[in-house]
Amino acid sequence: MKLAGVMPPITTPFENEEVALDRLRENLQRWNQTDLSGYLVLGSNGEAVYLNDKERLSIVEASREIIPSSKIMLVGTGMESTQETIRFTNQVAQIGADCALVITPCYFKGSMKPQILYDHFVSVAESSRIGILVYNVPRFTGINIEPELVARLSEHPNIIGFKDSSGNIGQLSEIVHLSQKNFAVFAGAAPVFFSALCIGAVGGILAVANVVPQEFCKIQILFNEGKIDAAKELQNLLTPLAKAVTVKYGIGGLKLAMDLAGYFGGKPRLPLQKPAKEVKEELKQLLLPINKKP
Amino acid sequence: MKLAGVMPPITTPFENEEVALDRLRENLQRWNQTDLSGYLVLGSNGEAVYLNDKERLSIVEASREIIPSSKIMLVGTGMESTQETIRFTNQVAQIGADCALVITPCYFKGSMKPQILYDHFVSVAESSRIGILVYNVPRFTGINIEPELVARLSEHPNIIGFKDSSGNIGQLSEIVHLSQKNFAVFAGAAPVFFSALCIGAVGGILAVANVVPQEFCKIQILFNEGKIDAAKELQNLLTPLAKAVTVKYGIGGLKLAMDLAGYFGGKPRLPLQKPAKEVKEELKQLLLPINKKP
Amino acid sequence: MKLAGVMPPITTPFENEEVALDRLRENLQRWNQTDLSGYLVLGSNGEAVYLNDKERLSIVEASREIIPSSKIMLVGTGMESTQETIRFTNQVAQIGADCALVITPCYFKGSMKPQILYDHFVSVAESSRIGILVYNVPRFTGINIEPELVARLSEHPNIIGFKDSSGNIGQLSEIVHLSQKNFAVFAGAAPVFFSALCIGAVGGILAVANVVPQEFCKIQILFNEGKIDAAKELQNLLTPLAKAVTVKYGIGGLKLAMDLAGYFGGKPRLPLQKPAKEVKEELKQLLLPINKKP
Amino acid sequence: MKLAGVMPPITTPFENEEVALDRLRENLQRWNQTDLSGYLVLGSNGEAVYLNDKERLSIVEASREIIPSSKIMLVGTGMESTQETIRFTNQVAQIGADCALVITPCYFKGSMKPQILYDHFVSVAESSRIGILVYNVPRFTGINIEPELVARLSEHPNIIGFKDSSGNIGQLSEIVHLSQKNFAVFAGAAPVFFSALCIGAVGGILAVANVVPQEFCKIQILFNEGKIDAAKELQNLLTPLAKAVTVKYGIGGLKLAMDLAGYFGGKPRLPLQKPAKEVKEELKQLLLPINKKP
Repeated sequence: MKLAGVMPPITTPFENEEVALDRLRENLQRWNQTDLSGYLVLGSNGEAVYLNDKERLSIVEASREIIPSSKIMLVGTGMESTQETIRFTNQVAQIGADCALVITPCYFKGSMKPQILYDHFVSVAESSRIGILVYNVPRFTGINIEPELVARLSEHPNIIGFKDSSGNIGQLSEIVHLSQKNFAVFAGAAPVFFSALCIGAVGGILAVANVVPQEFCKIQILFNEGKIDAAKELQNLLTPLAKAVTVKYGIGGLKLAMDLAGYFGGKPRLPLQKPAKEVKEELKQLLLPINKKP
Repeated sequence: MKLAGVMPPITTPFENEEVALDRLRENLQRWNQTDLSGYLVLGSNGEAVYLNDKERLSIVEASREIIPSSKIMLVGTGMESTQETIRFTNQVAQIGADCALVITPCYFKGSMKPQILYDHFVSVAESSRIGILVYNVPRFTGINIEPELVARLSEHPNIIGFKDSSGNIGQLSEIVHLSQKNFAVFAGAAPVFFSALCIGAVGGILAVANVVPQEFCKIQILFNEGKIDAAKELQNLLTPLAKAVTVKYGIGGLKLAMDLAGYFGGKPRLPLQKPAKEVKEELKQLLLPINKKP
Repeated sequence: MKLAGVMPPITTPFENEEVALDRLRENLQRWNQTDLSGYLVLGSNGEAVYLNDKERLSIVEASREIIPSSKIMLVGTGMESTQETIRFTNQVAQIGADCALVITPCYFKGSMKPQILYDHFVSVAESSRIGILVYNVPRFTGINIEPELVARLSEHPNIIGFKDSSGNIGQLSEIVHLSQKNFAVFAGAAPVFFSALCIGAVGGILAVANVVPQEFCKIQILFNEGKIDAAKELQNLLTPLAKAVTVKYGIGGLKLAMDLAGYFGGKPRLPLQKPAKEVKEELKQLLLPINKKP
Repeated sequence: MKLAGVMPPITTPFENEEVALDRLRENLQRWNQTDLSGYLVLGSNGEAVYLNDKERLSIVEASREIIPSSKIMLVGTGMESTQETIRFTNQVAQIGADCALVITPCYFKGSMKPQILYDHFVSVAESSRIGILVYNVPRFTGINIEPELVARLSEHPNIIGFKDSSGNIGQLSEIVHLSQKNFAVFAGAAPVFFSALCIGAVGGILAVANVVPQEFCKIQILFNEGKIDAAKELQNLLTPLAKAVTVKYGIGGLKLAMDLAGYFGGKPRLPLQKPAKEVKEELKQLLLPINKKP
């Protein structure tokens, strides 16, 4: 299995505020029929911060049943403390996750100096039974990992990749260039997916791929075939939707777009709420040209 | 019991990375001999984000045993999700907490619009068996609560106070002015404690009060006696230490200063680390003039 | 003449986009009848950045004619380059300015390290024939001067004061405490004027004092008489207007409020525009309780 | 003449703090021998904010003499006020500038709403005798122009292009996609020059092109020949130098690197200073692999 390609950070379906595993299984079965290379379970868009320990494990177990061995099962396991991160990473390894995505601890932002982060990730990597990917998402954490730090981390044999949701292509470019060979760098911001491929990213972990998975796979397929202009054009077509279901309307918007695209989206967990009514119409309009495309 | 005065957000002692309840009890017994009006258990400086559910409960239980009924027992119960916050708030109410401090949910910063926050706090207040205080700490959460929102929240009978760690006195001043009578507004940033008293705050929940509790009580005593200049002078004397054990050296610095002041500080939990060696000397120097004071 | 008290950063009247000196003279004559201790000419709110060299000099000259020797005439003279700042400072000294307010150079924000700023201000002070005050306004410049730097600058005999528009009372408090005796620290943010007096500021240079000069003088008079609660109450009454004519509606709002208060406000220079029509009604409502006050 | 390709924002040589036009002429004569498509005169890196009116005109006149008609002469003319911007733009048009680069006014950041900026740029375009390009440089101005606004501005026949120094490739990508055909979008941040070409930028206005002009021309030549990997590789080789002479060491660093590369760099104007001594060695090391390249 090659660590590359397009993966959605899968959303967590709720019914009456409770985790709805059957809905999750149905979504996965549909996604399995696309060219998605794998899944990120318990990512930011999986509302992992709103789930308790028991719910998290149930989601990992249910996903493991449905995700075929031909697709990557990446699980978000980063906690604020180093020891909890190690504990949970090995728990999901036990259930059968292929690798783990570890977010930068961030509550005490001012204290998260590069060496502190380095020690954290290396400690987790040392004790983890599966490979880990480092996750940089300044929009949520308020901290950014510098390319030099990623380069150092990439030297550890059990730190196998990186997801960058900053959207900063200059930084991503440096990371690809400075990190070790075979270190898998993923874009985490869909509006720059095409750009990320240009500078050497191996794939994307993209919220909007919950909604239009095959379209984002297509960008990478076109790019790999050397059809640069067609890949860029498809990116431009998809960018407005990608922005709407992340920065603009958040997870409520993402789930609403999933409903419109035939998946189970449903409501996010409180305090998150569904977007206002008019958003539905806007998302429909954004999906229209994508569906019309030959 | 009046909701006012100086309270430390008590630190969590660790020995070999495990919670050391005996050390916590010893600290509380010493603090009990001061004019502190109460305690915040499981605040930011209590490293609440590094504790699992079981550890949190054990700390609340141990604290309840030692905190006399004459002092306020405030417990930090805010989680990212509304339902977990309610669940945990009622759990600590059951153990005997007097009131709960509820932080702004913050992971999905961009989605935490005023109405979302309003709904969250009101839902928690509606379902909580004890009064709640709203906690604003932009340095950690990346979001700020505007005075207008606090004013609206203060109208709810079960939302009884506010802790502001932004250090923004203009904002705090508006909050005191706009909120309902008897709504208890606390400063959360020690360098502006004196200023906060000037504009009408009823007290302070101050990290540095773990180290020099009586000195901060003294500021308020002097202020209440109309000895404004003496209060201001004492504040100026304490400000450098207050900055060192928060913004400058974080919880590692706070715990080191506690060790120097005769409390059990110890090490923070990983990924946090002890400050560099030279910090010990610096903190000693900062404590010197305070101890010398007649 | 004592460097203290309330001063407005006087606005620049325009008629048909041209500087209207007569209107300026009329405003000054009215302000002269209040307890204002002086004026800041060519401050931010004077739209100094929109004026050319000739216009600036004409304004300084016209102001000098009308400002009595009993009131302070402070002139904003800070430019991006050190040599232009010195040149212009001595030009206004020649015309009769009492002292000069020098803003932090800010275009190359990333390069404006503390030592660079120190060298700039000291160079200006060395070559200036009048005393200079340092001006900190992060909202416009994007940089902040730390208390330690202000303390060092206060040691220079020709650096005689400081205006802080950050609104950060903790910082202002440290500046008052750390700087040399007789170094005049002014608040530059009206919503924290009362708080600034509490921590030892000698006065305020306040945009809203263009509109309601006597009311802000009254806050300081009450404070000096020890009528702390009355001073605080008056501050609370004035804060909403103060916010409206700065952060909320900018100079367009400030000038509109001046028109409503019987001064000549007029339009700001393009690209600034007058606020939308409904703002007039809002400002009227904000002025109402102030005028009603016995 | 096609508006495209690589242009340096030429630095302003000073000797004894005075503009040294002869040095400027010598630099231009050397640059003329490269594939640079033109020059930006009086850009940020030209220290335009440190020059008075007379100096600015002398630089434009001296440049006009040496820049051949086959190369673009773009001049920075943006001032804070609309009328000064128009006046100066037409002054440089009179001297023979081909087009003008107009920065976002920025002193009153909070007031620079999209419609205010739109009105400013359209007013300038209406009254300017040469075409204008809009200049977005949030690092210096503290404000950012959104793609939607650029798209609207691109509809005006006399607004002919855009320089983006934000380094935000997602945004640049949207701007290229949303703006009118033949609207010339330039990258202003050298580390993302290759990425900018991938998403459709027509060229770059790059500080580091003062130092290694031909190398950046080469990136675009390789890209245009379809040698994507070679272009990317060259970009990676040049990125560390590009960062050093902008974000890291500012104009002092840029000028020092020019000295090392055989141009006249000299010192920046005060308050800017030359970088510390050890920077010279660092820049030498960064230039080494570039010069060694076959």
